[in-house]
Amino acid sequence: MNEFELIARLKPQLPTNESVVEGAGDDCAVLDLGVAGSYVLFKTDAVVEGIHFESNAAPSSVGHKALGRCLSDIAAMGGTPTAALVTLGLPAGFDVAWVDELYVGMNKLARKYNVAIAGGETTQSPDRKFISIALIGAVDKKSCVRRTGARVGDGIFVTGELGGSLRGRHLEFEPRVREGQWLASHFPVHAMIDVSDGLAGDLRHLLQMNNVGAELLSDAIPITRAAKLQAVVESSAKPPLLAALTDGEDFELLFTVASKDAVPLLDGWKAEFGELRLSCIGKIVERPGLRLCDKQGVREINLGGYTHFGKPANS
Amino acid sequence: MNEFELIARLKPQLPTNESVVEGAGDDCAVLDLGVAGSYVLFKTDAVVEGIHFESNAAPSSVGHKALGRCLSDIAAMGGTPTAALVTLGLPAGFDVAWVDELYVGMNKLARKYNVAIAGGETTQSPDRKFISIALIGAVDKKSCVRRTGARVGDGIFVTGELGGSLRGRHLEFEPRVREGQWLASHFPVHAMIDVSDGLAGDLRHLLQMNNVGAELLSDAIPITRAAKLQAVVESSAKPPLLAALTDGEDFELLFTVASKDAVPLLDGWKAEFGELRLSCIGKIVERPGLRLCDKQGVREINLGGYTHFGKPANS
Repeated sequence: MNEFELIARLKPQLPTNESVVEGAGDDCAVLDLGVAGSYVLFKTDAVVEGIHFESNAAPSSVGHKALGRCLSDIAAMGGTPTAALVTLGLPAGFDVAWVDELYVGMNKLARKYNVAIAGGETTQSPDRKFISIALIGAVDKKSCVRRTGARVGDGIFVTGELGGSLRGRHLEFEPRVREGQWLASHFPVHAMIDVSDGLAGDLRHLLQMNNVGAELLSDAIPITRAAKLQAVVESSAKPPLLAALTDGEDFELLFTVASKDAVPLLDGWKAEFGELRLSCIGKIVERPGLRLCDKQGVREINLGGYTHFGKPANS
Repeated sequence: MNEFELIARLKPQLPTNESVVEGAGDDCAVLDLGVAGSYVLFKTDAVVEGIHFESNAAPSSVGHKALGRCLSDIAAMGGTPTAALVTLGLPAGFDVAWVDELYVGMNKLARKYNVAIAGGETTQSPDRKFISIALIGAVDKKSCVRRTGARVGDGIFVTGELGGSLRGRHLEFEPRVREGQWLASHFPVHAMIDVSDGLAGDLRHLLQMNNVGAELLSDAIPITRAAKLQAVVESSAKPPLLAALTDGEDFELLFTVASKDAVPLLDGWKAEFGELRLSCIGKIVERPGLRLCDKQGVREINLGGYTHFGKPANS
């Protein structure tokens, strides 16, 4: 059973109450706690030694990644992060310098986005370190962007470039907090998700949740230099396009807007973010499924993204 | 380095912002998110297989414990829990029935206190399962009880009975949510903490934070039947009073009120909670330190409570 099947199994039984606007299934939980005009966003995420980071990774990068992953989820709803708690699992004879450096990376990223680290908890974890982050944020009720809301005819956009993140970027990525806020407050973004499990996997979630399909233009998919380089130097590496479609941990924003907004969006983006790419990679269509269009024609793609617990989703 | 030394080391560097009323160092973080009249409480806590629960523990009890620990911290501030997120660390070939049962226990406790489980995250943890809970709650600004605020002359009270929790109660305890709310809304409770690391350890935190001392009446300390029984049947067991002072995971509430409120408090408590004991176990004094009074006289006690990472605190 993979994580998506597990979530689908558990979700119907979960207790809810009057505070819950959106529970399991979006980038963050959305709560109405009585703050005038805004919802509270609530997110947790954990990184585990040997799974999300190697034992010899720079601890400051591990701290950056642990917090950055949660920030990326707040970004994917157009929200502003507010305060985090950090739960650390450490072995009994842990290395204090390692923990200090972990916090250097985490604190630096938190300060950049005015996020408070308001405490947390330490616990013993004899075999592997883990860092579990809980993050609260806020979002204007009018500009809270969900995974649902994509409409037939929408343009599909992605920020930055995709693929090859494991070569280093997964420890150093910039969560698209400002970009997510700007998008949500300047355009009627119909649906948004952060690309954490790979473009093909995350887009497929979005399509399934909206009961629509997508046609992607293979030439329009932005591919990182790392993924291109990898394909050249490693004979066993994925072709760059496949890497962009299926590598995990890009932490870019994937979203849809009405086609009439596409040009003003690209113009506004360029004026605001200059250097950072924004690519229109295809469109939402009625027929379910994910198709790739290139010079050879149109082909159905059944690639899953990265999943935990081995078995790929939707494959 | 134990966890308290680690927290003391990290705390001065933690980023803060305008939302933070109380950061690291209390039972929960206290945030002002703009909800009229109330603060948001924010807490995380993790339980790890082999540390907080044995591999053969009933998974529904593990779920109960994981959520109950966080509820106990909300209770210790007089708050009301609202919504939780659950981060699960599981091995690749995890047992689905185990996870189902975990949620049975967690969902049941959540429903009892009208707590939503609004999602979470699953991640791979090859060697040991862990469950990390993040919990949001609310508390009236006027009745938010901190760890600070104890005054010389206050009576020291504790709910329920202490000691011997590892014999079973640590998996089945009732978080004192209703009791905490009732206390905070009916009396000027000066300071409160939940007893998770043992009475001696947690009271010592409270004393140190308030720069005061305490005299406890050894006859007044409520001891569980389990701790008494253990001392009879196991020759190597702690004497019952020592168990009550130093065993961890009681999850009772420890608090102080002005001595003039002691009698109305005990009367009101009995009318409200009948069966559940509330004991006045001593008083706050000016001279720092923790002293135990019995027929033999007064003696200084330097017992620490349970700490993670081996070395006991304050010993």
